[in-house]
Amino acid sequence: MKNATIIGATGFGGLGLIEILLRHPEFKIKQLAARKDVGKRVDEVFPHLKGFCELIIESPEAIDYSGMDIAFFSTPDRAGMTLISEFFSRDIPVIDFSGDFRFNDAETYSAYARFKGMEDKHLAPEILAHAVYGLPEVNADRIKTAKVVGNPGCFAVSIMLGLLPAVEMGLADSQTIICDGKTGVSGAGKNPGEANFYPQRYENVNTYREGKHQHIYEVENVLKSKSKNKVRIMFVPQIVPLNRGILTTMYATAKAGLTTKKAFDAYKEYYEGKPFVVITDKSPNTTDVRGSNRCEIRPMVDERTGMLFITSAIDNLVKGQSGNAVQNANIIFGFDERTGLDVPAFYP
Amino acid sequence: MKNATIIGATGFGGLGLIEILLRHPEFKIKQLAARKDVGKRVDEVFPHLKGFCELIIESPEAIDYSGMDIAFFSTPDRAGMTLISEFFSRDIPVIDFSGDFRFNDAETYSAYARFKGMEDKHLAPEILAHAVYGLPEVNADRIKTAKVVGNPGCFAVSIMLGLLPAVEMGLADSQTIICDGKTGVSGAGKNPGEANFYPQRYENVNTYREGKHQHIYEVENVLKSKSKNKVRIMFVPQIVPLNRGILTTMYATAKAGLTTKKAFDAYKEYYEGKPFVVITDKSPNTTDVRGSNRCEIRPMVDERTGMLFITSAIDNLVKGQSGNAVQNANIIFGFDERTGLDVPAFYP
Amino acid sequence: MKNATIIGATGFGGLGLIEILLRHPEFKIKQLAARKDVGKRVDEVFPHLKGFCELIIESPEAIDYSGMDIAFFSTPDRAGMTLISEFFSRDIPVIDFSGDFRFNDAETYSAYARFKGMEDKHLAPEILAHAVYGLPEVNADRIKTAKVVGNPGCFAVSIMLGLLPAVEMGLADSQTIICDGKTGVSGAGKNPGEANFYPQRYENVNTYREGKHQHIYEVENVLKSKSKNKVRIMFVPQIVPLNRGILTTMYATAKAGLTTKKAFDAYKEYYEGKPFVVITDKSPNTTDVRGSNRCEIRPMVDERTGMLFITSAIDNLVKGQSGNAVQNANIIFGFDERTGLDVPAFYP
Amino acid sequence: MKNATIIGATGFGGLGLIEILLRHPEFKIKQLAARKDVGKRVDEVFPHLKGFCELIIESPEAIDYSGMDIAFFSTPDRAGMTLISEFFSRDIPVIDFSGDFRFNDAETYSAYARFKGMEDKHLAPEILAHAVYGLPEVNADRIKTAKVVGNPGCFAVSIMLGLLPAVEMGLADSQTIICDGKTGVSGAGKNPGEANFYPQRYENVNTYREGKHQHIYEVENVLKSKSKNKVRIMFVPQIVPLNRGILTTMYATAKAGLTTKKAFDAYKEYYEGKPFVVITDKSPNTTDVRGSNRCEIRPMVDERTGMLFITSAIDNLVKGQSGNAVQNANIIFGFDERTGLDVPAFYP
Repeated sequence: MKNATIIGATGFGGLGLIEILLRHPEFKIKQLAARKDVGKRVDEVFPHLKGFCELIIESPEAIDYSGMDIAFFSTPDRAGMTLISEFFSRDIPVIDFSGDFRFNDAETYSAYARFKGMEDKHLAPEILAHAVYGLPEVNADRIKTAKVVGNPGCFAVSIMLGLLPAVEMGLADSQTIICDGKTGVSGAGKNPGEANFYPQRYENVNTYREGKHQHIYEVENVLKSKSKNKVRIMFVPQIVPLNRGILTTMYATAKAGLTTKKAFDAYKEYYEGKPFVVITDKSPNTTDVRGSNRCEIRPMVDERTGMLFITSAIDNLVKGQSGNAVQNANIIFGFDERTGLDVPAFYP
Repeated sequence: MKNATIIGATGFGGLGLIEILLRHPEFKIKQLAARKDVGKRVDEVFPHLKGFCELIIESPEAIDYSGMDIAFFSTPDRAGMTLISEFFSRDIPVIDFSGDFRFNDAETYSAYARFKGMEDKHLAPEILAHAVYGLPEVNADRIKTAKVVGNPGCFAVSIMLGLLPAVEMGLADSQTIICDGKTGVSGAGKNPGEANFYPQRYENVNTYREGKHQHIYEVENVLKSKSKNKVRIMFVPQIVPLNRGILTTMYATAKAGLTTKKAFDAYKEYYEGKPFVVITDKSPNTTDVRGSNRCEIRPMVDERTGMLFITSAIDNLVKGQSGNAVQNANIIFGFDERTGLDVPAFYP
Repeated sequence: MKNATIIGATGFGGLGLIEILLRHPEFKIKQLAARKDVGKRVDEVFPHLKGFCELIIESPEAIDYSGMDIAFFSTPDRAGMTLISEFFSRDIPVIDFSGDFRFNDAETYSAYARFKGMEDKHLAPEILAHAVYGLPEVNADRIKTAKVVGNPGCFAVSIMLGLLPAVEMGLADSQTIICDGKTGVSGAGKNPGEANFYPQRYENVNTYREGKHQHIYEVENVLKSKSKNKVRIMFVPQIVPLNRGILTTMYATAKAGLTTKKAFDAYKEYYEGKPFVVITDKSPNTTDVRGSNRCEIRPMVDERTGMLFITSAIDNLVKGQSGNAVQNANIIFGFDERTGLDVPAFYP
Repeated sequence: MKNATIIGATGFGGLGLIEILLRHPEFKIKQLAARKDVGKRVDEVFPHLKGFCELIIESPEAIDYSGMDIAFFSTPDRAGMTLISEFFSRDIPVIDFSGDFRFNDAETYSAYARFKGMEDKHLAPEILAHAVYGLPEVNADRIKTAKVVGNPGCFAVSIMLGLLPAVEMGLADSQTIICDGKTGVSGAGKNPGEANFYPQRYENVNTYREGKHQHIYEVENVLKSKSKNKVRIMFVPQIVPLNRGILTTMYATAKAGLTTKKAFDAYKEYYEGKPFVVITDKSPNTTDVRGSNRCEIRPMVDERTGMLFITSAIDNLVKGQSGNAVQNANIIFGFDERTGLDVPAFYP
């Protein structure tokens, strides 16, 4: 059994980790830390955990490094970079949920930070070179030996898994690919605010940060590394009255001669052996993946317009966050990727 | 007061008409007809109408033409074409909610019907030449004297109002325009089935008829008539856990030099004097238009990718159906377009 | 046209008033005031009001009393009592939405305030004697000449209208009547917090303030005044994943010999001439009254257990708040009670 | 590993069994049968099962009894009684989800059937004497050796677990106990109809079968067997816009001297050693138990009115159906009751 510490345990990311690690045969939750609710038992914050996890939330200052095998930072941008050195120096692998370690040089980080509109100086630049982008379907080899994993953004997962085969195998001609993303409300996190205010959200759809969402940056960064050509993403996120789930629809000009059958076969081949990517020839539903670590993808070609059209569905809190993080942790310790994650969606 | 008859009174289209005409100062509901619920009082079918409308639902065979000033056919495809001649011969204007009179020659109708996968022979071809496509923002002049108005499809309204300025004023270069449409569940009508089954819909998003929705046909038909170039639409409808509302996001390559400011000004100018189109520089929300006849449109240019991005929001049951129909009826009788329709959205 | 000022204009109560007064033929909104959003146009706060109401929100200090015919205080407990004297001295009638003027002596107010757990000293005790409890179905005569109307609580409306005939006509024997109330989330107001946090509310039902909700106090106060016997209420409020609406189920031991038919007839007779109370023999649905000022009530006797069972349905934001307030205002000025309020529910 | 056959596999009850048995270490699903979807793979009906369960749905006529250790009948009333003899004669234990085996003599069954309004002649009366009512918290001893278990109704579970301590330990004086039950929409099953029609349900609350729901019959049957006095239930079910979950609020006159503390202690003691009943002193939320087999119960005494007030929360599809059934199956084979069921609620 490996001992895992969760920092940022009282948000939805932390909760997701607790829920998965509780059923994981190889990990044991050693300590929970957070800035909020320090001193409370975690089942006071999340009553459904009563009898399953009754650890006390401790402050980050009270973290006990002895016997710790891995740490998850379910913390916002710029929190992990202030905590990382204590873990790095002790050789404890860290999986960070923010943008802090999604890029491996200070310059790219700074460009990302400016794109998001934040302070742009990284506070642990010497560690960046050791950071690995945590998309297991692409980077499993490097994740195996990573000391710091930058777990991807939820929208980024849905877009990258949808586009990687098209970009890498040259199925699309277009330089600008349209990504239209629909997310559930839980994506806005656990603090009450406008974005998760029931009377505004229960019967509403709207776009936000049109063309400017920070996940664009990491998506283009990854896709460029896989493509011979320049790749640009026009991404418009939207909130729909769903709690969990992301459905992203993607549109690119198909290469001449591409058919739905060929695209389907290419996607199948590309994801051969990737246990959480399901290629389908039916319309994906977010209910198909709710609560599961799967990403369901359907590529098709609209012959009338010559467009390659791809749909991907994930659970933003699982494959888009804590499930993907545990998948990374499995890889680090050499466990089967599916360990603790091999459950069907929660339905209905 | 003009006397209006509603055929298909027990569906959501019919109900929408009843609700609007009840508050309309110039129309009186003369008769309600339907195939279902014949013999019941309408407030048995819709209890909230008790005390407001207590007419008996009659069969289409029992329609009384005397004193009728206008008829609304809130009926499915291929029903109106079997009823129309009785009205046409009596010179009673008809507004039909299906695809039966959205095209004005039998050949185009047949192509549409095949696209939708229906029997393709029109049953009242001699009347088609008199049919006018009922989008008042484009066709008001012809609607004034129309005998038969083909009320547009709900998605079609959201797309056409969003794209007409771009296409007609040449703001976009692309031949294929991406339209990503999100609709509420009420769009699936009033008969219980898979598409409106609560346990499947309350927490789900999915695409359907990708690139093949029948509204594509009327949209391309209208846009082509306004453009110097060929226009093709790649349209993917989606159902979201919303009851009412359509949010469509549209993407085209912007003409060189176009900016958000120029696009905004062009849209403002194009819709000058159109009371129900609101051009905005904020992200439209479907709550802004729920229960209202407005269409809220935001054009913007994403300078990073050079895309012209347009969002439009309507209530699928009002501007997408019965509200638009009453707007057409107002035009036919020379009333102010806003009569009976000038109410703010229902919020929260 | 009478000039109305709304204080607390940016909450759901204020918004409800704006929406109703906009369509009211006899009232004109003269001024909007609030503590929040001062200096903004109201349609910046509520975008759906664009083109309908574009007044600037002003601070309560900037209220202009000249030409004001009536004021609505859509303000929390203990705000109205600090504002009232300026209006009272100018003889401007006030309708207050809080508990401040629901009791007409300082002692009863203090008992209420302690029950709710607030500071218990009334700050305008000299005005309390002029306050009238604003339930028009009971107090219309006194409301006509009232200078200060205490608009009832939303749950209180649903309970009192449900129980008044039973209590006043002696249809029930029991001293303790069970009231089980289900409310929509909008009842928690317009500030984001735990009670209206989408991820917690979208799929949850729970009780709160069991037996201790402050509306118990005003309900017992009114029922006692109408009954020969002591009346006690055991009331348990619940939040359900509904935005608008209250359904209250009420249980009392039926008087021997009472049948559903007799109870129905008694209720019908009791509410004869009350335009907003609808007695029905079918199960009320909150959708039947959503957006309307109606209260739908069904009394029935369960012969197996001898219980008198009453269901009442209202829209918490209309008959439970702003609609009832406008009904009171209509009575004060001698307008038909229905003026501006005679619209069917918003459905679907 | 024990081999389990599921009959009625394509409804929500069958699906619930599949989901639980897939993670159960002691049961293996041997065969799936149903009247609907015969010949399809189960993951065509429920796409989220792809890769987890890919059995073909077979007709009940094709059931293979060889090697079968247990059968679950997730079938409607009067289906199980026609199937039972084949299983009984082979000594295969059966857990039936309908009312067919909830009573153990033909006379009581007939009274129940008439109460529900069905044909009242039992078709396997000779087996009724072997039937055991499947509420493990009460009947574990008899379930151990049962050949036929009548799994309780979902509302019945929520009411009985809430009232048993009060009735058996004499904490309440009243003969008639008020039970106000709120259920999610999934309780109406998997066939689209009025009760689960999204546009009607997404923003609605209503009562139904007031005082006449068939679960009253089994509740009174059980409570009477545990009480010295007569017990009558006035039960009013309600549908709320929730998918999963039942919250039942129960009201009885408290015995003189009872306090919340005493009631809490009595409930704690009564359910000592029952792993799925959680006694709490906070307001239960249906989210606390969603997807779990727990029943959360809070007893309290309202001192002002002298009422004993009990709230219980369950997931109607788990403790109210398939979870409880697997708990029964665990008991039959001598496994720990918690096997396969010990997972926390699905949140958020």
